[in-house]
Amino acid sequence: MPINPKSTIEVTAFKWVPPFAEGLVRDLRVRWALEEAGLDYRVRLIGQDRPPDYIKEQPFDQVPCFSDGNVRIFESGAIVQYIGEKSEALLPADPQGKYRAIQWTYAALNSVEPAILNVFAVTVFYADEEWAKLRRPGAEDFARNKLRRVSDWLGDQQWLEGDRFTIGDLIMVTVLRNLKHTGMVEEFPNLDAYVKRGQARPAFQRALADQIAPFREHQPEGAAA
Amino acid sequence: MPINPKSTIEVTAFKWVPPFAEGLVRDLRVRWALEEAGLDYRVRLIGQDRPPDYIKEQPFDQVPCFSDGNVRIFESGAIVQYIGEKSEALLPADPQGKYRAIQWTYAALNSVEPAILNVFAVTVFYADEEWAKLRRPGAEDFARNKLRRVSDWLGDQQWLEGDRFTIGDLIMVTVLRNLKHTGMVEEFPNLDAYVKRGQARPAFQRALADQIAPFREHQPEGAAA
Repeated sequence: MPINPKSTIEVTAFKWVPPFAEGLVRDLRVRWALEEAGLDYRVRLIGQDRPPDYIKEQPFDQVPCFSDGNVRIFESGAIVQYIGEKSEALLPADPQGKYRAIQWTYAALNSVEPAILNVFAVTVFYADEEWAKLRRPGAEDFARNKLRRVSDWLGDQQWLEGDRFTIGDLIMVTVLRNLKHTGMVEEFPNLDAYVKRGQARPAFQRALADQIAPFREHQPEGAAA
Repeated sequence: MPINPKSTIEVTAFKWVPPFAEGLVRDLRVRWALEEAGLDYRVRLIGQDRPPDYIKEQPFDQVPCFSDGNVRIFESGAIVQYIGEKSEALLPADPQGKYRAIQWTYAALNSVEPAILNVFAVTVFYADEEWAKLRRPGAEDFARNKLRRVSDWLGDQQWLEGDRFTIGDLIMVTVLRNLKHTGMVEEFPNLDAYVKRGQARPAFQRALADQIAPFREHQPEGAAA
């Protein structure tokens, strides 16, 4: 769906992020879910210097926030689940199918992502610090173990619960993309193919293009115009 | 509710854990939610040496798993949410109230817990390693910043969304308890009072007692009987 400035759905996103964060900011998950569900949305762009009251909407001062006239919520996992409840393209209606998908959403965010973000920390944010150099092999092994467990579960299935794409896959693919600078996902061919299958979906492609477009139109704050 | 061996609800838990993990294992969350909802349950105890096929139930080889004849799921956040949908004692029925609570469940598990578990890693698991000593101040500051944001949000409210306890509080309290060996939560008096308020609930007390009881009856594997 094209972005529609008159939509009742509003999502917050950044005007600009550093190159390492392009395509990884979490509003991507919400945009992707909305595209899969066929719902249009408007975007409220904010700067790295957040508006003064933004923290009252998002206590951790991050994006995305979501509102649609019925709910006003933050946290990408919760927002994607909320959108999922509006579309069987994202979340089955039967209790077992629904909660297997929700379970994978939590698993991606709590059992997999923390290990991956620790690799991101020692390879990007703190790469030059002594502790990060010492920690890197252990952090990579810990994350690799998580990847192995997801890979073992996935086997030769198309998606985590079989033939049907759900919010669990949407979140898991975006979590795994945080390793794209490392080559670690590629160590597990079925997981690599899984991420590529997710990224090949037209809804993902539209969401990614729409997230990145503003970064080309805005300067980092403080930069010369 | 007393544990009931004939209940249709089954939760997996450990026979025994090392002392540092007592009261922190994640089946506590599920037991607490079931107690709040007034649902009885049976427990399937497993050893630190997992049963051979356990990984087919829980791909990360952890507890808890949950089944009730209708769904079979893992991940404590998803299980607690599923139980929440059965009881307004845990999850409001109106969309905004419901999704504000779900949002805090995700926030606790994805925006707060990873920072706290990194403190746990450098102060408990890897305390003697050189990288952990170098990383400790930074890891603590990062977690402290998360605590400050939750504390600022909470203000003088009783629970995260006002007067009503929800699954978001249940998960947040169990996340914050992972810092009990550090004194860091006590730096924020309103947050300290919030955790104590959660822990004072009779449902929490019963859940904790029932989690710990088997640890007194079992030996660590390999230990002399």
